[in-house]
Amino acid sequence: MSRSINLAVIPGDGIGQEVVSEGLKVLSAVLPQDVKLETKEYDFGARRYHATGETLTDADLDALKQHDAILLGAIGDPSVPSGVLERGFLLKLRFAFDHHVNLRPSKLLPGVATPLAGQPEIDFVVVREGTEGPYTGNGGTIRKGTEHEVATEVSVNTAYGVERVVRDAFARAQARPRKKLTLVHKNNVLTFAGHLWTNIFNQVATEFPEVTTDYIHVDAATIYLVTDPARFDVIVTDNLFGDIITDLAAAVSGGIGVAASGNINPGRDFPSMFEPVHGSAPDIAGQGKADPTATVLSVALLLRHLGYDAEADRIDAAVTADLTERATLGARSTAQIGDALAGRVAG
Amino acid sequence: MSRSINLAVIPGDGIGQEVVSEGLKVLSAVLPQDVKLETKEYDFGARRYHATGETLTDADLDALKQHDAILLGAIGDPSVPSGVLERGFLLKLRFAFDHHVNLRPSKLLPGVATPLAGQPEIDFVVVREGTEGPYTGNGGTIRKGTEHEVATEVSVNTAYGVERVVRDAFARAQARPRKKLTLVHKNNVLTFAGHLWTNIFNQVATEFPEVTTDYIHVDAATIYLVTDPARFDVIVTDNLFGDIITDLAAAVSGGIGVAASGNINPGRDFPSMFEPVHGSAPDIAGQGKADPTATVLSVALLLRHLGYDAEADRIDAAVTADLTERATLGARSTAQIGDALAGRVAG
Ligand SMILES: CC(C)[C@H](C(=O)O)[C@@H](O)C(=O)O
Ligand SMILES: CC(C)[C@H](C(=O)O)[C@@H](O)C(=O)O
Repeated sequence: MSRSINLAVIPGDGIGQEVVSEGLKVLSAVLPQDVKLETKEYDFGARRYHATGETLTDADLDALKQHDAILLGAIGDPSVPSGVLERGFLLKLRFAFDHHVNLRPSKLLPGVATPLAGQPEIDFVVVREGTEGPYTGNGGTIRKGTEHEVATEVSVNTAYGVERVVRDAFARAQARPRKKLTLVHKNNVLTFAGHLWTNIFNQVATEFPEVTTDYIHVDAATIYLVTDPARFDVIVTDNLFGDIITDLAAAVSGGIGVAASGNINPGRDFPSMFEPVHGSAPDIAGQGKADPTATVLSVALLLRHLGYDAEADRIDAAVTADLTERATLGARSTAQIGDALAGRVAG
Repeated sequence: MSRSINLAVIPGDGIGQEVVSEGLKVLSAVLPQDVKLETKEYDFGARRYHATGETLTDADLDALKQHDAILLGAIGDPSVPSGVLERGFLLKLRFAFDHHVNLRPSKLLPGVATPLAGQPEIDFVVVREGTEGPYTGNGGTIRKGTEHEVATEVSVNTAYGVERVVRDAFARAQARPRKKLTLVHKNNVLTFAGHLWTNIFNQVATEFPEVTTDYIHVDAATIYLVTDPARFDVIVTDNLFGDIITDLAAAVSGGIGVAASGNINPGRDFPSMFEPVHGSAPDIAGQGKADPTATVLSVALLLRHLGYDAEADRIDAAVTADLTERATLGARSTAQIGDALAGRVAG
């Protein structure tokens, strides 16, 4: 394990700056004295786009590549046309750094508010493919703006890309007590991609005899997520289905204020990026109202990825304790929640 | 209004036969004496596929075309490989009969169980496009079964196809008290299709100045469906997004036991098809356990499509009364529920 962390920090837009500050506060508090933390801030997002027209240049990618990991707040602003920062920054980075494992854990902690009745048990992880599917930007438009316009979007799925994420998901399922993996797809309609996913899933399953497997269609998965979320342990799924079901998963397990994610390159050929699932929430930006918990939990994923398991465990425990007591604590600002968490992990 | 209904009946697989029987029972009970109801049963589904290898032939389509409408129970059986009946029957029929408006209402009635806490108000309609998007079967596979396999799925979106369904949705929103229409897409990632949908939506909006509009991404839509479903009045969306969010919508508004749908050709160039959202549920088939309510509500949609609004209203009222009393009624069989509903609409 390296005893230094060279971190790229991308606060981004809206509440990004606020939540990232708290994430860094907790990171500093949890790291042992002998671990040297270096951070470098990057100014990606709406401001830079408006000032320069740039979202993410080759030089930027070269600079980011030098880091051990990346912590991102949020990117996106209503002043920028939809798609520009998403495709030009967020997705460009995921693709450039081959972040093929998009990891999104969901855990409903005791006492945390959920829209579901009866406080069900929720503790699962979604392994979302991050570099293929309908996210590749393949497709196009002809006769744009006319009554004869045709627009296509091509979902690209390769055996190489599917196998590596499925294998990663099996390994994660194998390491968990319940050892259960669910493939979520729509193989009865998207039969080309569906057969590829299903066949590879079944092949890799033979290498993990201890892991129980099942398959459900994405539409049915949304039903189970609200009627029986306890049935899930690890889910592996396509990029777009993963996008959709992880927002729902976040909603039922405490809200996007506490949903963390990692955009991971497991082989560490490139730095992985960790970010809250929520967006930049411009409506509450700068008011100290944003919950930094999702960012702090993303820092825990970051530490786990870099091999600092004990420190990640301390953050998870601090968040659990904080959330469990939250109902009795009254309203707190972004910084107050960050301070509380930093206090707990340091203690 | 025609004073005769020539109905094609497709019981299909699993619980399909049971629920369709009750649907027809209620239909007979609600129709005035002077309306002549003719029905013809068709044997599509797993049994016919196993016996003949056929799912839906050109001759079948010619026969179905003669009817005023189609009532379907459910198609699908584990003995048939995934995709064969879906693509070979259900989707083939939707495409052949140009069912471009896939209508799926969601209404949570008082007293009906929902997985959501606090019994929120839910009363919205999803207008799902039915003949384009990722459902076209475009795409393919190369190097199948090898480690170099590539599988693609092409979402096809045309100005013609998007405009007609968007226009239909605006008209439906205009006719409802709240007059609100939400476009659900993922235009920040699927930018080709997303721009087409968004531009056409904004254009058609100018023709409906009374309708309030908004846009949300499909991932965020799943959050609102569980945290604030009351925000929705009419939703218009793509074929695949519609598939996913209507299962979730059904789950939160009483379950797929009560979710109805219409596959509608508004111009009546072809007969429209009405079916419960649920599948064939082979695990409970033949046991009289299936809830026929979704099929009965599909019959109401069918009647409304054919211009029998008063009769449709009577069915809706009967179902509302039945569901509201359900908690006090104890367990009933499929036929008992059908009898109760038939009794109410006849009265
Ligand atoms: C902002 C957008 C590009 C992104 C995605 O669709 O992946 C977001 O929704 C997410 O889930 O991280
Ligand atoms: C069975 C399947 C082809 C179908 C669909 O995906 O449209 C179903 O899920 C539905 O929603 O009617």
